[in-house]
Amino acid sequence: MNTFGRLFRFTSFGESHGKAIGGVIDGCPSGIEIDYDFITEQLKRRRPGASKIASLRKEPDEVEFLSGIFEGKTTGAPIAFVIYNRDQRSKDYETFRDIFRPSHGDYTYYVKYGNVDYRGGGRYSARETAVRVVAGSIAMLVLKHLGITVNAYVSQVGDIKLDIPYSELDLSLTYTNDVRCPDTAVANRMYELMHDVKTRGDTVGGVVTGIIRNLPAGLGEPVYDKFHARLSYAMMSINAARGFEIGEGFSAAAMYGSQHNDAFYINEDGQIRTLTNHSGGVQAGITNGMDVVFRVAFKPVATIFKPQQTVTRNKKTVEFVYKGRHDPCVVPRAVPVVEAMAAAVTLDFLMLQRAVRL
Amino acid sequence: MNTFGRLFRFTSFGESHGKAIGGVIDGCPSGIEIDYDFITEQLKRRRPGASKIASLRKEPDEVEFLSGIFEGKTTGAPIAFVIYNRDQRSKDYETFRDIFRPSHGDYTYYVKYGNVDYRGGGRYSARETAVRVVAGSIAMLVLKHLGITVNAYVSQVGDIKLDIPYSELDLSLTYTNDVRCPDTAVANRMYELMHDVKTRGDTVGGVVTGIIRNLPAGLGEPVYDKFHARLSYAMMSINAARGFEIGEGFSAAAMYGSQHNDAFYINEDGQIRTLTNHSGGVQAGITNGMDVVFRVAFKPVATIFKPQQTVTRNKKTVEFVYKGRHDPCVVPRAVPVVEAMAAAVTLDFLMLQRAVRL
Amino acid sequence: MNTFGRLFRFTSFGESHGKAIGGVIDGCPSGIEIDYDFITEQLKRRRPGASKIASLRKEPDEVEFLSGIFEGKTTGAPIAFVIYNRDQRSKDYETFRDIFRPSHGDYTYYVKYGNVDYRGGGRYSARETAVRVVAGSIAMLVLKHLGITVNAYVSQVGDIKLDIPYSELDLSLTYTNDVRCPDTAVANRMYELMHDVKTRGDTVGGVVTGIIRNLPAGLGEPVYDKFHARLSYAMMSINAARGFEIGEGFSAAAMYGSQHNDAFYINEDGQIRTLTNHSGGVQAGITNGMDVVFRVAFKPVATIFKPQQTVTRNKKTVEFVYKGRHDPCVVPRAVPVVEAMAAAVTLDFLMLQRAVRL
Amino acid sequence: MNTFGRLFRFTSFGESHGKAIGGVIDGCPSGIEIDYDFITEQLKRRRPGASKIASLRKEPDEVEFLSGIFEGKTTGAPIAFVIYNRDQRSKDYETFRDIFRPSHGDYTYYVKYGNVDYRGGGRYSARETAVRVVAGSIAMLVLKHLGITVNAYVSQVGDIKLDIPYSELDLSLTYTNDVRCPDTAVANRMYELMHDVKTRGDTVGGVVTGIIRNLPAGLGEPVYDKFHARLSYAMMSINAARGFEIGEGFSAAAMYGSQHNDAFYINEDGQIRTLTNHSGGVQAGITNGMDVVFRVAFKPVATIFKPQQTVTRNKKTVEFVYKGRHDPCVVPRAVPVVEAMAAAVTLDFLMLQRAVRL
Repeated sequence: MNTFGRLFRFTSFGESHGKAIGGVIDGCPSGIEIDYDFITEQLKRRRPGASKIASLRKEPDEVEFLSGIFEGKTTGAPIAFVIYNRDQRSKDYETFRDIFRPSHGDYTYYVKYGNVDYRGGGRYSARETAVRVVAGSIAMLVLKHLGITVNAYVSQVGDIKLDIPYSELDLSLTYTNDVRCPDTAVANRMYELMHDVKTRGDTVGGVVTGIIRNLPAGLGEPVYDKFHARLSYAMMSINAARGFEIGEGFSAAAMYGSQHNDAFYINEDGQIRTLTNHSGGVQAGITNGMDVVFRVAFKPVATIFKPQQTVTRNKKTVEFVYKGRHDPCVVPRAVPVVEAMAAAVTLDFLMLQRAVRL
Repeated sequence: MNTFGRLFRFTSFGESHGKAIGGVIDGCPSGIEIDYDFITEQLKRRRPGASKIASLRKEPDEVEFLSGIFEGKTTGAPIAFVIYNRDQRSKDYETFRDIFRPSHGDYTYYVKYGNVDYRGGGRYSARETAVRVVAGSIAMLVLKHLGITVNAYVSQVGDIKLDIPYSELDLSLTYTNDVRCPDTAVANRMYELMHDVKTRGDTVGGVVTGIIRNLPAGLGEPVYDKFHARLSYAMMSINAARGFEIGEGFSAAAMYGSQHNDAFYINEDGQIRTLTNHSGGVQAGITNGMDVVFRVAFKPVATIFKPQQTVTRNKKTVEFVYKGRHDPCVVPRAVPVVEAMAAAVTLDFLMLQRAVRL
Repeated sequence: MNTFGRLFRFTSFGESHGKAIGGVIDGCPSGIEIDYDFITEQLKRRRPGASKIASLRKEPDEVEFLSGIFEGKTTGAPIAFVIYNRDQRSKDYETFRDIFRPSHGDYTYYVKYGNVDYRGGGRYSARETAVRVVAGSIAMLVLKHLGITVNAYVSQVGDIKLDIPYSELDLSLTYTNDVRCPDTAVANRMYELMHDVKTRGDTVGGVVTGIIRNLPAGLGEPVYDKFHARLSYAMMSINAARGFEIGEGFSAAAMYGSQHNDAFYINEDGQIRTLTNHSGGVQAGITNGMDVVFRVAFKPVATIFKPQQTVTRNKKTVEFVYKGRHDPCVVPRAVPVVEAMAAAVTLDFLMLQRAVRL
Repeated sequence: MNTFGRLFRFTSFGESHGKAIGGVIDGCPSGIEIDYDFITEQLKRRRPGASKIASLRKEPDEVEFLSGIFEGKTTGAPIAFVIYNRDQRSKDYETFRDIFRPSHGDYTYYVKYGNVDYRGGGRYSARETAVRVVAGSIAMLVLKHLGITVNAYVSQVGDIKLDIPYSELDLSLTYTNDVRCPDTAVANRMYELMHDVKTRGDTVGGVVTGIIRNLPAGLGEPVYDKFHARLSYAMMSINAARGFEIGEGFSAAAMYGSQHNDAFYINEDGQIRTLTNHSGGVQAGITNGMDVVFRVAFKPVATIFKPQQTVTRNKKTVEFVYKGRHDPCVVPRAVPVVEAMAAAVTLDFLMLQRAVRL
């Protein structure tokens, strides 16, 4: 089940230390111009080594398209792409090939498949998210065509929170700093925390906020495939994601209906809108034309440089000290991944809705 | 897309004020004994009118099975069931047939389908969750066969939180009170809050905690169909759900890796387990044999008895005062629904895993 | 896997001698007027007992809709329907409850599910096709809305073939006789053969031809989901179907390219059409705007009234003589089923095509 | 919808004159040893230029695996593979870039996607079948593991038929001649016909027979996903396929029940088997443990070297004479493709059946 989506679908393949990773996008409408610079830019934002804070591993992440594009435009045929793995350094991993690293997938994959690719996480490495970024960037290009935009940014690192609502932020600043937080002052504080955490050989979690704007009302399916249910599924499938909220999210649990309800009104263009947006743009599972606003919580990266107790495949208890290269915080790199997955979900729903209206 | 699941699937139908609601369960293993009392009990726990707090609407929720069961056991054929709507009182709703009730689905459904069933929510009524309870109860019976248990309970109502970890609670007490909180003292405080809220004509949100125990390691798919991604999708598809967490959830954002990592050890039965369970039983998307622990946030019910501003289908602004019967808090009734959906997800993954191991 | 279709989907349930059969149609566009008379008429054409030739079992086949229709029109919500089984006579079957009837599903179902519903075929009875007729009739109503028509008729019974091409037949005569053959003279000969076969306690096979007209060009998916591949799947899923052809079908194997190719020309309306239609309306898996023409072969019904050797569940060899009520030829009753399934496939492809064109 | 299968799935990509074709196999069980020689052999059997009869185009068809295999065995992760296009000669096609070649997909693709890849069929070229051969060969390796074999052979070319039943043939001789017919004498006659047809600049159709042996009873789904319905779908999705039969197929239409029924008996190993196999190994949609026997009809290749009338994109009528390289008969090359698709369907059903038996 390495395929995501129902009408706009993509299938992912590849291991972090194998030959290549890549994917096949199926169901993309034809005639969409491919903006290679945009895709490359989003990939660059995802890859490690982009800042002083992140892992030192250099992944040029050059995407090569193999099919589905002719004379610069999508043809409607499957779009296959490959990103070759160059800087693999599998040897880094050989020393702990029998060890189940705490809170990594080594153990669970071993149980599931009866084997484990000890070369650095294999399939469950965050490197797979590059595939999502390519597929999602193409979804973003289709959405852009329709006037819909998707944005994400870091709103929390450790205990440092950006409390200003997104509507008061200049989201064009997000990618101007390594933290991917549009408020420069807060970004600096987050950066310092990450730096401090790195110095201590530790890691830290964080939160990414996402916003989808200009979405038509009427997207989402009534019962199981609610817009936010699919969005939640998409977000929780990102490596290290641990929580999802739409609108007020967990805060809604402590609210009264009289506080939470969004009153309808007619805006100056004669459109039905709500005065507040506690619902986060989704009511009864279907978009209402307001901005879709959601948040995704990420746990701290499991790779820390402190001694940890663990066990081996032969059930021996050992002390384990990690040596290698990793990020103190995955959250800045998750921003383009959140954008990609949100775009894929949105386009899928748009296509589903077109199918059903004769 | 009114079907849930991949191998253990169910399809839901029916409107709250139509003839009936019901569903078809497809892919259920054959030879499972049907415990009608258990299904009836779970349905009873879901239905409104079960306590003094909840809505006054009486829904006997008698489920009638039409197929797939022969001599008390599942046959492997689709299991269809119907719950007839008896106490409909559609007239309650006629007075506001042109009004888009704030934070209900009236408006979004109208845009999506070009029509609206004004008889009380139609398809987006929480009444549909009875279908989930029937299907999920049958999943629970299959799981029970395999020694796996699923439990849920109310852990927050408004600002009253149950802070004791589930391992220190006696979960068999959950359904002994109307709040479905296993700590009687906290349950009483929650009850008082709900009562108070009701008196004020208002509603309040809350949180349900879920636990899946005795699950084998190895369930869940590697990338998109991570165990907690599908679980999140299932939970967020429940009416009024606004947030989902696995393990530490949003708290993980403020933690360090050295705090969050779960060290492996060998337990007295020679099994690989973790000393802590910050991961909530899922690592890299796959179960690790520890309890799966998750939380779902619910918003306050949109139906309040205070005057609200809204608009009509003809884009007139009106003041709206609701008259009818509803719960001040949906969370107690959501408990069996959370159990049902968690069981459905779990059984689906169990079946997928069997398929792939030759 | 009792669900058919991708966007226009229906899920079937029920056993021939259980309480009821029925289905849930999901994904049907909203606003379609339901023509109950048409559905009833198609059901009547399918049911046994409609002619002197067919089985004596009386199945009134009264369909009751439970959801998805409001004020006579589809709402976009799932359309559930039930047909209760009235004339069941399960006792007819009790005498051979341990016997695997030759060429029935008794044995294969027993192996598959570990149980067998001895009450007359249970799930694999042709009675299930009533569900297809209801769902397909609704698809036909949607197609009619778009000007597309679906027709089928009997073109062979035993060795009696109707050799006149469909374009020279008056298809409105199909349902005027019990054989469902639009050529009255040939229909009479077929009728006599069926009558003769019945007298001998035997059964006979036949062929149904189907035609879809006014279909737009461009429907069908490029590689695996070719229009005729899905159509073939749909037809071969009908009880007793043994072969499928599109266009020239098996005859094409003995043709030369110079005979088989369809030359393009511009018709008087300026449309691109082909001079001949050896392709049967589908080229490279996609409709070309010509009529889609296909044929389905059906085997003789397995229930014959002659002594047959078989074995029991306990592996005893026995002689078996069937006593009961059945058709000498299933093909006339298959006609509305072929129409239903063809309509479902066509509508599904129409919806898929709408989704992908922005 | 370029994905085939439900549990054992593969997604195909690539155009015949683009950079590459390839695929991603998802859901393959882990621990299966990859026999590269076998895959290469099957690919060689499919590729054109393998005999004097076939097209002169040389396609080395070297498959490169990018993922999912570690130390020679499948890991359970997606298996991606690429076959680069080397001998493309797109210029051959430029001369008729605006012409809709009769009975090719040029027109239907143009209507569907609003563009056409004039470089030789693009996506609808039979070159895509190489992807099926790779995926299906891996399915065959898994099946071999379980003792199940899949074979196909040419049983008709033009009007020359091999009338001997498969049980009297030595199927190991199939690939010893260019025609892929296990009866050498008949193969020679077929070869002469193909040669003659080629000399005349024409093409001819044919039939491939397939046999699946050692299959357990109990595979196949009851209603829509009957074993032979999925098999039919798989076969009809192969380029140029026009008809499908299981067991007696269209001949069954002219048979009586007393001729067609397969009597059960107990074989010397105490197993339930049938004395005859008119059913072709499938009863009521589910395998009965006998050999599955089916036939697929292929039309003559559309590319002939005689002048043909057609139209251009600008709706001009033109005479068209093809110049290029193609086969006089596609049927010999279809043999490994039929084997591949049959294996994929079989493995998929095996996995589905494992899932449902607890």
